[in-house]
Amino acid sequence: MEYKFSDRVSNLKPSAIREIFKYAADPEVVSLSAGNPSPDAFPAKAIAEISDDVLKNNPISVLQYSVSEGYTPLRQHLRDYMKRENNTGSENDDIIITTGAQQIMDLCSKALLNEGDVVICEAPSFIGSLNTFRSYNAKLVGVTVESDGMNIEELENALKTNPNAKIIYTIPNFQNPSGVTTCLEKRKKIYELAKKYGVLILEDNPYGDLRYSGENIPNIKSLDTDGIVIYAGSFSKVISPGMRVAYCIAPKPVFQKLVVCKQGNDVHTNIWSQYVCDEFITKYDFNSHLAKLRSIYTKKADFCMDLLDKYCKPAITYNRIDGGLFIWCDLPQSINMQDFCKKAIEHKVCVVPGNAFLTDESDPCNSFRINFSTPTDEQLEKGIKILGELANNWN
Amino acid sequence: MEYKFSDRVSNLKPSAIREIFKYAADPEVVSLSAGNPSPDAFPAKAIAEISDDVLKNNPISVLQYSVSEGYTPLRQHLRDYMKRENNTGSENDDIIITTGAQQIMDLCSKALLNEGDVVICEAPSFIGSLNTFRSYNAKLVGVTVESDGMNIEELENALKTNPNAKIIYTIPNFQNPSGVTTCLEKRKKIYELAKKYGVLILEDNPYGDLRYSGENIPNIKSLDTDGIVIYAGSFSKVISPGMRVAYCIAPKPVFQKLVVCKQGNDVHTNIWSQYVCDEFITKYDFNSHLAKLRSIYTKKADFCMDLLDKYCKPAITYNRIDGGLFIWCDLPQSINMQDFCKKAIEHKVCVVPGNAFLTDESDPCNSFRINFSTPTDEQLEKGIKILGELANNWN
Repeated sequence: MEYKFSDRVSNLKPSAIREIFKYAADPEVVSLSAGNPSPDAFPAKAIAEISDDVLKNNPISVLQYSVSEGYTPLRQHLRDYMKRENNTGSENDDIIITTGAQQIMDLCSKALLNEGDVVICEAPSFIGSLNTFRSYNAKLVGVTVESDGMNIEELENALKTNPNAKIIYTIPNFQNPSGVTTCLEKRKKIYELAKKYGVLILEDNPYGDLRYSGENIPNIKSLDTDGIVIYAGSFSKVISPGMRVAYCIAPKPVFQKLVVCKQGNDVHTNIWSQYVCDEFITKYDFNSHLAKLRSIYTKKADFCMDLLDKYCKPAITYNRIDGGLFIWCDLPQSINMQDFCKKAIEHKVCVVPGNAFLTDESDPCNSFRINFSTPTDEQLEKGIKILGELANNWN
Repeated sequence: MEYKFSDRVSNLKPSAIREIFKYAADPEVVSLSAGNPSPDAFPAKAIAEISDDVLKNNPISVLQYSVSEGYTPLRQHLRDYMKRENNTGSENDDIIITTGAQQIMDLCSKALLNEGDVVICEAPSFIGSLNTFRSYNAKLVGVTVESDGMNIEELENALKTNPNAKIIYTIPNFQNPSGVTTCLEKRKKIYELAKKYGVLILEDNPYGDLRYSGENIPNIKSLDTDGIVIYAGSFSKVISPGMRVAYCIAPKPVFQKLVVCKQGNDVHTNIWSQYVCDEFITKYDFNSHLAKLRSIYTKKADFCMDLLDKYCKPAITYNRIDGGLFIWCDLPQSINMQDFCKKAIEHKVCVVPGNAFLTDESDPCNSFRINFSTPTDEQLEKGIKILGELANNWN
């Protein structure tokens, strides 16, 4: 049989990160390539209590079919929580629960993008989302990420020259992979430009609750008086990624299409896990839990940056981060990044080559991404020391 | 903001069944419109034991990120189980775990269908799958379902006249909605025709384990020596639909594309529920559990058919079923089916109008679908009595 695949997936490759994970699976390898929450970060005891209780007393409620919009109490509680804590969402919006935030990218692509339509992305950006857009044959246009967010001139130029741009995709807080946080002024400008050019903003905020220093900056969605922002939130980094529970706050007409698309994707999200998330954020002290996570990750982030200062100067430079799980490291022009990443694997350290995060992987890039949430402190020290030795003795 | 949705979803409507569910939510209404497993059918105690144990002893294993292919032990056990029990799957196939079988339809559509490509479907067929194919702008071509499966002449004609047909979609066992089981001879003919015309078969088998009478008939996938059959299995009807765990056995080149598409859809399926399903089918007596389900549903199916005989003759006729959860009822030409379904709702009984299951909803149809697994015996008797009175006193 000669298989004829669809045009949209014929050229789609497995994620470059996945390929790297094959090396990372070797127990001798120090992996700085993942994005997994720290094993300390899971509220496992609370999850066990909640689950145990419902399976004893009302099992059918979490084992039977449910509705595509999501578990009604969770939707209501998230609506209240996001309004109260983040001034996010209005009466013109509605909320849908999804199977991880990755599904939000999929549903928005399905609902909004014709083949060839343009998605304007930060360059670099989250590879998972880029691949979803690609899987709908969207054209990706990258806008350079500066230390305070997208280059606004480039963004306006991209909007001007791409009349079929439909979405601006942005991760404004502690961006994956760059670690950059978009400043308030740029958030306002991105909003104004989207409005001016009639384009929707897809604001992806998986790390927003993981701020280690500095003041919170309002979500772009909190500025949304025109119904042009779709907000993606997730429990993956603050409760459990294995459960695949996320939520999307969208203008009602968009919400309605997302629900129809969700029916066709997977009918509804695992209701047992939705119930557990709902009980956890309402019956437990969710804010204390978040404070605990911040404390765990602040320590790990500081430790990681101290190691970079200690072992990697002067060859490897990086921007300090205020939150999130990733640090973006730059190599001097004298070191070829791809060669460096390969050499690192030979020395049993795994990082992600920066070009994996570009809209065009063949664009020049001399950076790589490291993650500090997954490895132990010992692994971090061992891995970063090796990276520093490699870079500082390159030839 | 004037929202511009993609062409593929602009005309997509929420499922007609969903609309009916709004009426069905009224506690005074007897709903014969759902397809939910019976509340007695869930192995709630075993699920609680398995979950309790893993959350106490190894919580991170079910709360952390996992791989897109699915939980490795579950894939291996299903591979063995399906080979042993159903002679289904070969060394040329691989298996991917999905978020319900609905996602199999989505992933296959994404991987295989260009816009305008044809999916040949049974008429009537499962509305959820039809809507997924529609959401990729596929063209649906219906082939009449007879009492022993698709009309083979019509099928060959559909293949001849649609050179861009990519998939034949079939539910060979106790089909939703018709209740029809495709006989072995027709399964072989469908296979031969797919091979002759270079088209893949998507065999959807959610009810295969729910046979109440007669002998099992080999899956089409068990005939697959040419790598042309994609098999969709599911735990929704035999463990829990709320968990959203299903599995797809596909030729390896197709499997690889499905994995790439799955990454973009939701990264991976809820790992906690995958683990629970795996433990349940390996550490518990899964075959006894299936026997228990068959015993529950055999009783309910017989009870329902007895009620139809008692209350609905001669106006409503139906074909006896050998398994599954649905019975397809026919009205005489003197009764307009849409009017009948509306009148039934006024009398507080909900059934699904048959045209909802057609590739073109405006095609003539004088049938409706009832379900017997969800309502109680009392509700079944009350509802069917009302349907019989309405039909036999129509005017």
